[in-house]
Amino acid sequence: MEQFDPFIKIAHRLADAARPVVRKYYRTAVAVDVKADASPVTIADREVETTMRAILAEECPDHGILGEEHGHHNLDAEYVWVLDPIDGTKSFIVGKPSFATLIALCRNGKPVLGIIDQAITDERWVGIEGRETTFNGTAVTTRPCPALDQAIFFTTAPELFRGPQIQAYETIRTQCRQPMYGVDAYAYGLTALGLADVVVEANMQAYDFCALVPVVEGAGGKMSDWQGEPLHIYSDGCVVATGDHHCHEQVVAITRAAMP
Amino acid sequence: MEQFDPFIKIAHRLADAARPVVRKYYRTAVAVDVKADASPVTIADREVETTMRAILAEECPDHGILGEEHGHHNLDAEYVWVLDPIDGTKSFIVGKPSFATLIALCRNGKPVLGIIDQAITDERWVGIEGRETTFNGTAVTTRPCPALDQAIFFTTAPELFRGPQIQAYETIRTQCRQPMYGVDAYAYGLTALGLADVVVEANMQAYDFCALVPVVEGAGGKMSDWQGEPLHIYSDGCVVATGDHHCHEQVVAITRAAMP
Repeated sequence: MEQFDPFIKIAHRLADAARPVVRKYYRTAVAVDVKADASPVTIADREVETTMRAILAEECPDHGILGEEHGHHNLDAEYVWVLDPIDGTKSFIVGKPSFATLIALCRNGKPVLGIIDQAITDERWVGIEGRETTFNGTAVTTRPCPALDQAIFFTTAPELFRGPQIQAYETIRTQCRQPMYGVDAYAYGLTALGLADVVVEANMQAYDFCALVPVVEGAGGKMSDWQGEPLHIYSDGCVVATGDHHCHEQVVAITRAAMP
Repeated sequence: MEQFDPFIKIAHRLADAARPVVRKYYRTAVAVDVKADASPVTIADREVETTMRAILAEECPDHGILGEEHGHHNLDAEYVWVLDPIDGTKSFIVGKPSFATLIALCRNGKPVLGIIDQAITDERWVGIEGRETTFNGTAVTTRPCPALDQAIFFTTAPELFRGPQIQAYETIRTQCRQPMYGVDAYAYGLTALGLADVVVEANMQAYDFCALVPVVEGAGGKMSDWQGEPLHIYSDGCVVATGDHHCHEQVVAITRAAMP
């Protein structure tokens, strides 16, 4: 997969550029606007994305971009960068270092490169199709967890789920060994480190999940939508991630039953 | 309150001694035992507490100790140290840096000194009766939030609440501006920093909450049990913390209604 080498360098450059902006605004009581979908946004989100887009305009002007804050551009390109400047803006606003900058590169809609970067704790996960995921430069792997009743299960908040999704969440929550809450993309990073086992979320956007796929899968885990299908830039935003492939089948059997 | 000066030095010494032990075991896949109350415990919890108790035995052998892992000693003493070596063991086990070492000193049962120490992110809150709370050495204050519908509300997990407590949680969750989850004692630290507004939890032990009281109140906030009564070492473990005193009355009106 040497074809991705120049893009890996660009991805690191994006993450490196995001860090000082994130740090500048962290715990500074930034003003919060509320977007049309009721999610909060701050000057930090916007400035981080602007910084990253300027680098992409310089490095690879032919590539497309889909960003959370500043819209999309050239989505028909073979390569599209998918950017969430601050995933977990709610965590950022309260000063809880579990938010992350998410950077993905999709090729023909499929995520082939992903970075989860935490600027406060200096943590960076890098996943690339066909390679081992690294955490701060060291290869990492998920752990065995063949059954849901042995799993540490993460979701950001019970409020993520709507309508029939709630029943799927309740089933997983009661069948797992331990439910845990509140860490956004960080939960997928912990799964890649072999410290957690299952993450199930719903109603996400492409910029919330594309970067996670190469990270989790390059560490040996599996990600899909709630039907068990591979995730791509136009997936519906209902996501299952597991460290162990056996556990994935078991969880998807539950999520699939909740889909229309 | 100069009378507490020698004890403040001891409290810092305890927190300083806990840090290298916490760091040594962080993300090392420590073995997990399950205690009689179904909560997990690791060698890290036990070794941190042993380290702190050795210092107390040397510095103040006449004081009492109540620790999460190694029991109690001389609880009738005027001064009793209340220790939770790792509050949020579940977070510690999954490698999420929102756990904390909690150190409290109670005088005649009342918490007069509290430390919340996060060893991975290098964060230390210190609260002392009659003084301003400090965060890494700098004085901090809570923020105004006169009404629950403006509040960022934290609780560790919905599963904390039992029986009639669940209704109180649901009422607060639906009336607040934003519910957030999953950070144990760290939520009280964020409240002291003026970044969050309300924390409500239930079925805690003295070592889970005693250290939080001087931290939150020294920053200008208020803590009580669900009846609105001041917390002491023998409180029932149902806790309300708010940054703003007006909001406290509103929250306690809800929690009080859920008590037998």
